[in-house]
Amino acid sequence: MKSLKNRVVVAMGSKSDLPVMKEAVTLLESWGVKVDTQIISAHRTPRLLETSVQKWESKNVKVIIAGAGGAAHLPGMLASFSHLPIIGVPISTKSMNGLDSLLSISQMPKGIPVATVAVNGGFNAGLLALQILGIHEKKISGELIKYKRKLCNEVSGHRRKLQNLGINRFLKQKK
Amino acid sequence: MKSLKNRVVVAMGSKSDLPVMKEAVTLLESWGVKVDTQIISAHRTPRLLETSVQKWESKNVKVIIAGAGGAAHLPGMLASFSHLPIIGVPISTKSMNGLDSLLSISQMPKGIPVATVAVNGGFNAGLLALQILGIHEKKISGELIKYKRKLCNEVSGHRRKLQNLGINRFLKQKK
Amino acid sequence: MKSLKNRVVVAMGSKSDLPVMKEAVTLLESWGVKVDTQIISAHRTPRLLETSVQKWESKNVKVIIAGAGGAAHLPGMLASFSHLPIIGVPISTKSMNGLDSLLSISQMPKGIPVATVAVNGGFNAGLLALQILGIHEKKISGELIKYKRKLCNEVSGHRRKLQNLGINRFLKQKK
Amino acid sequence: MKSLKNRVVVAMGSKSDLPVMKEAVTLLESWGVKVDTQIISAHRTPRLLETSVQKWESKNVKVIIAGAGGAAHLPGMLASFSHLPIIGVPISTKSMNGLDSLLSISQMPKGIPVATVAVNGGFNAGLLALQILGIHEKKISGELIKYKRKLCNEVSGHRRKLQNLGINRFLKQKK
Amino acid sequence: MKSLKNRVVVAMGSKSDLPVMKEAVTLLESWGVKVDTQIISAHRTPRLLETSVQKWESKNVKVIIAGAGGAAHLPGMLASFSHLPIIGVPISTKSMNGLDSLLSISQMPKGIPVATVAVNGGFNAGLLALQILGIHEKKISGELIKYKRKLCNEVSGHRRKLQNLGINRFLKQKK
Amino acid sequence: MKSLKNRVVVAMGSKSDLPVMKEAVTLLESWGVKVDTQIISAHRTPRLLETSVQKWESKNVKVIIAGAGGAAHLPGMLASFSHLPIIGVPISTKSMNGLDSLLSISQMPKGIPVATVAVNGGFNAGLLALQILGIHEKKISGELIKYKRKLCNEVSGHRRKLQNLGINRFLKQKK
Amino acid sequence: MKSLKNRVVVAMGSKSDLPVMKEAVTLLESWGVKVDTQIISAHRTPRLLETSVQKWESKNVKVIIAGAGGAAHLPGMLASFSHLPIIGVPISTKSMNGLDSLLSISQMPKGIPVATVAVNGGFNAGLLALQILGIHEKKISGELIKYKRKLCNEVSGHRRKLQNLGINRFLKQKK
Amino acid sequence: MKSLKNRVVVAMGSKSDLPVMKEAVTLLESWGVKVDTQIISAHRTPRLLETSVQKWESKNVKVIIAGAGGAAHLPGMLASFSHLPIIGVPISTKSMNGLDSLLSISQMPKGIPVATVAVNGGFNAGLLALQILGIHEKKISGELIKYKRKLCNEVSGHRRKLQNLGINRFLKQKK
Repeated sequence: MKSLKNRVVVAMGSKSDLPVMKEAVTLLESWGVKVDTQIISAHRTPRLLETSVQKWESKNVKVIIAGAGGAAHLPGMLASFSHLPIIGVPISTKSMNGLDSLLSISQMPKGIPVATVAVNGGFNAGLLALQILGIHEKKISGELIKYKRKLCNEVSGHRRKLQNLGINRFLKQKK
Repeated sequence: MKSLKNRVVVAMGSKSDLPVMKEAVTLLESWGVKVDTQIISAHRTPRLLETSVQKWESKNVKVIIAGAGGAAHLPGMLASFSHLPIIGVPISTKSMNGLDSLLSISQMPKGIPVATVAVNGGFNAGLLALQILGIHEKKISGELIKYKRKLCNEVSGHRRKLQNLGINRFLKQKK
Repeated sequence: MKSLKNRVVVAMGSKSDLPVMKEAVTLLESWGVKVDTQIISAHRTPRLLETSVQKWESKNVKVIIAGAGGAAHLPGMLASFSHLPIIGVPISTKSMNGLDSLLSISQMPKGIPVATVAVNGGFNAGLLALQILGIHEKKISGELIKYKRKLCNEVSGHRRKLQNLGINRFLKQKK
Repeated sequence: MKSLKNRVVVAMGSKSDLPVMKEAVTLLESWGVKVDTQIISAHRTPRLLETSVQKWESKNVKVIIAGAGGAAHLPGMLASFSHLPIIGVPISTKSMNGLDSLLSISQMPKGIPVATVAVNGGFNAGLLALQILGIHEKKISGELIKYKRKLCNEVSGHRRKLQNLGINRFLKQKK
Repeated sequence: MKSLKNRVVVAMGSKSDLPVMKEAVTLLESWGVKVDTQIISAHRTPRLLETSVQKWESKNVKVIIAGAGGAAHLPGMLASFSHLPIIGVPISTKSMNGLDSLLSISQMPKGIPVATVAVNGGFNAGLLALQILGIHEKKISGELIKYKRKLCNEVSGHRRKLQNLGINRFLKQKK
Repeated sequence: MKSLKNRVVVAMGSKSDLPVMKEAVTLLESWGVKVDTQIISAHRTPRLLETSVQKWESKNVKVIIAGAGGAAHLPGMLASFSHLPIIGVPISTKSMNGLDSLLSISQMPKGIPVATVAVNGGFNAGLLALQILGIHEKKISGELIKYKRKLCNEVSGHRRKLQNLGINRFLKQKK
Repeated sequence: MKSLKNRVVVAMGSKSDLPVMKEAVTLLESWGVKVDTQIISAHRTPRLLETSVQKWESKNVKVIIAGAGGAAHLPGMLASFSHLPIIGVPISTKSMNGLDSLLSISQMPKGIPVATVAVNGGFNAGLLALQILGIHEKKISGELIKYKRKLCNEVSGHRRKLQNLGINRFLKQKK
Repeated sequence: MKSLKNRVVVAMGSKSDLPVMKEAVTLLESWGVKVDTQIISAHRTPRLLETSVQKWESKNVKVIIAGAGGAAHLPGMLASFSHLPIIGVPISTKSMNGLDSLLSISQMPKGIPVATVAVNGGFNAGLLALQILGIHEKKISGELIKYKRKLCNEVSGHRRKLQNLGINRFLKQKK
């Protein structure tokens, strides 16, 4: 029965990607989604790509999130092996500010899409996975609607506080 | 009953985006998915954004594909209003080669993801929508597996033909 | 009567934009212009866009300044709803140095311009608003002429001091 | 009396910029705004900058639009001399796709803003000038509201036609 | 015995890459190197990657040249599976001028290098393979030295012809 | 005596650079400067670099103009060998729009400057050489002052013609 | 006999490149390859280029690794003089993030390839040299196969540890 | 008599450019060239441009070095007014890494060249000025030849020291 809930894989090419990818894991788990967090490298463990995808697909995984940096091939290679939707997270790199990661992930050829989010967008990758799951799960789509309201309320709260306190006191209080 | 099948919206900011976005529509329809093709502009018809999203959500739309170029705001604004997964297609522009479109669509802030595909990736946007729908529709996921096989066979066919014909005859024959 | 002076809105997508946008507010207020500082997000409070614009237009607002970063949609969306001049401030982002913000704000389509200033150009956005207001307010245009003179005098002061002190003493004294 | 209506200058660095800048002129004149179209080069006629600005300011010019390409200095230099709002139009260049023009115009230092529009955005520069003039001219702001409605209707017309004709017939008819 | 001479693989992700990659094949074959030209896609035939590499390695292949465009993963994935030197050829793309291809191929992570040549550098990829083979084959290194001389003579020939004919006659004659 | 007038070298890495570099030659010769036009490649004729520089320096050459594209090393390598001022002309390339050429030429390390002009700026390279020669030749500096006046007059002529003819007749007449 | 083992040169344009290039040296030496580490500048010691290449070639050097930053000419110039395979390492620069170095090294013209690795990819340059040497040295190719296994095991170790410890304890333990 | 030696102007747009531009001043003065260091802003003191150029030209100034950042107009505007050679120094900016400065200075239109050096290349600007002066001053050209030798010796010294000490001791000693 466990596999039924084991629905999203969060994969990353290197342990150094974990701080960014953790945001997806934490978000998904806090919404009650079972997550399988994986360090798997397109370049260093290429033989694991196919077998992992097969295992995940057989275990009822619905969405795969994959983060990688530089010549970032993990999301695209998982997309090569799987018919599941793949969400790619370009991890920022020192030398190229993540432009290399973004282009390596988004510019996929015809036939093998990767759903690319912003550079270092681990949280948004998790949220996109929830939106995909929400299509057939009322509970999740209901939560998404609430989440949008919460975002809105947060901003409205900031706006009101800014208007009450004025800029200087608002900036001080923030810290 | 019609709305039940009316499951993917393909929206675009301008009629000039149609040739790229048509690829998504054609693909989806050829797989038996009902598509609602929409010209709706974040900048020129901003008041339609919210009402359209509400109508689509009430009509059982599952995925929204949105294409736009330049300071491309349509995908992101639809994502602001909807809890559905939004797939963004950066349309290439004359002056900036689509880099402006790609960054305007992919670099969304925390809380409002857009699933970005390649510049001019209309076809892949349609395919990504199918992958998302396929999560809960065996028929579609079965077709996706076949499609992957077909892609593979096509490339294998090219490889064999190239080996049989040699480069020069292969290149001639292609035309 | 208050609304008569409530003439410039300074909006921003996130409270993290406040340090940059504060420069516009401070400048405008120091010139006697009433400013309405707003945190309003195109992506998180999209429903507020239209109503806010209506309220601002009805309250005699003359210019709207909007700052946002990344896939920066706030200036463009305010421009979609309002016939007022919109000044866009691209806020610098970690991953893309503000190139994403600059392109997302400046590359607007035909029919919906945004007056874009430099990356992090909060101060210049305020000054541009003053130039716009100055068209019909002699007092402001007079101040602008004085401001230009002041800028000139400042630079001339630096030049003279540099010539008097020499480079090394000038550099020491600066600190 | 003529000078009273001579309210917008459209300047450009070279006659090769005229096709782009003409869009601003045509738009402004069709709205009843008197336009003074000028070929004036920051680099080839630098001595004309100051005297031209003085003449324009004395003749009741309200807004200056300036287009230039490459190391595009005209908008910034007019901004140095004038307290009027300057709208800069980056003209696309062969070698750099207009990125050089965009950065040369938008990245102005503190104290001398230029209201930058999109690359080759001659039309939008004219529209921005109208929005600035509209602040104090009810007739223009009224027209702007109508123009926004027209834009909206155009897009809605395209949407309806697309829904009636279907994609293929729509694409054929367009030509 | 055939396998002994079957020493360089020229692989490409798509038949559209053939015109660029053909330059490598033609060069290598004209130097007497046996070439195995392959259409094999990291994204469309991912399962062939490992088996192909194994076959090539067992057949005495010494160098693998791989060309791909956009999110170009073929060179990097072959490098993941093989201990042979991999030469990557970034194929130019319409939207990004090959910057995406260049970054996707060159920015490989620690442990899996790809020897990247210029965008569309099919010829140079072949030459680099010859330089690598030349390390242990006197005949090839001898030819490389002659080739360098030929390059030098060609340029010297152009220089002399230019000096004899003058610019205008030289330019005419070229055609 | 010939060498006395043989004062500017215009070098280029490939005969394909000639159309751009010819503009420098033609300009210089039309001003009475003797030009030595050279096809010499940093990469294909590296041994000629040092000997050519020595010959040029001994023959009273005052300025070296060098054009090259892509990984453009000719200007920088001539600067390595010569103490003369080197003017570098980045030649536009297909794949990178000349950004590669511009960075390869301008970003020289401390100690070996190259005076870089715009992408494809052959004419301006010639003019810069004239400005350098003009420092000690009254005749040339006098001509430069006249040339500036001519540029100014040309633009003024265009401006007047535009004002007389209006935009449409001006645009027609241009052709 | 010493020269027999003196097989790889690691050259760099400046001593400031040493920390990056040291990674190549350390790797190669730890695999038993003799390395000749050289500071040699294309721009500051141009006359040494040819003589050094001649000496290296006569001393049985098999591969030349060259690192340089900015307008990085060292790899390309060594490639001009030598028929050996040249591996280029773009060293990151402050102002351009290494994009200048990458383009200056990779975009070589037809006839003179440089095998470019990632920005700051000193380690990978060493590994690529080993792959090239491994073509004819069973011992090295055997080690490369083991190294690939080690990379794989490392990642697998991280994956298992992550699954055992969970994200938070894994992240803590890492430090 | 003083003016006779007052031969190079080092101008900069802002006192914040002084640390970079100081390198030019120090170099020139250490070679016995009289330098006039000027803070003069194209944007804040535009009226000083023409009069300053006139004064400098009348005072026997031979070369003008100008540094500026962002939308860097100072070098180009001085080039508009003067027939002297202008050397432009792009000053690095926070948001765009100096790419804006580099393009704003180098991409000058036909007729008004600026001799652009590397981003933050204050020292090289000074050296280029010396090369220009050296054309007619044997003493300076002699010093330039010595300087080249010194550069060469420095690198050779580093090379020898590295070979004597080995990498680790060399790196330690450097500090």
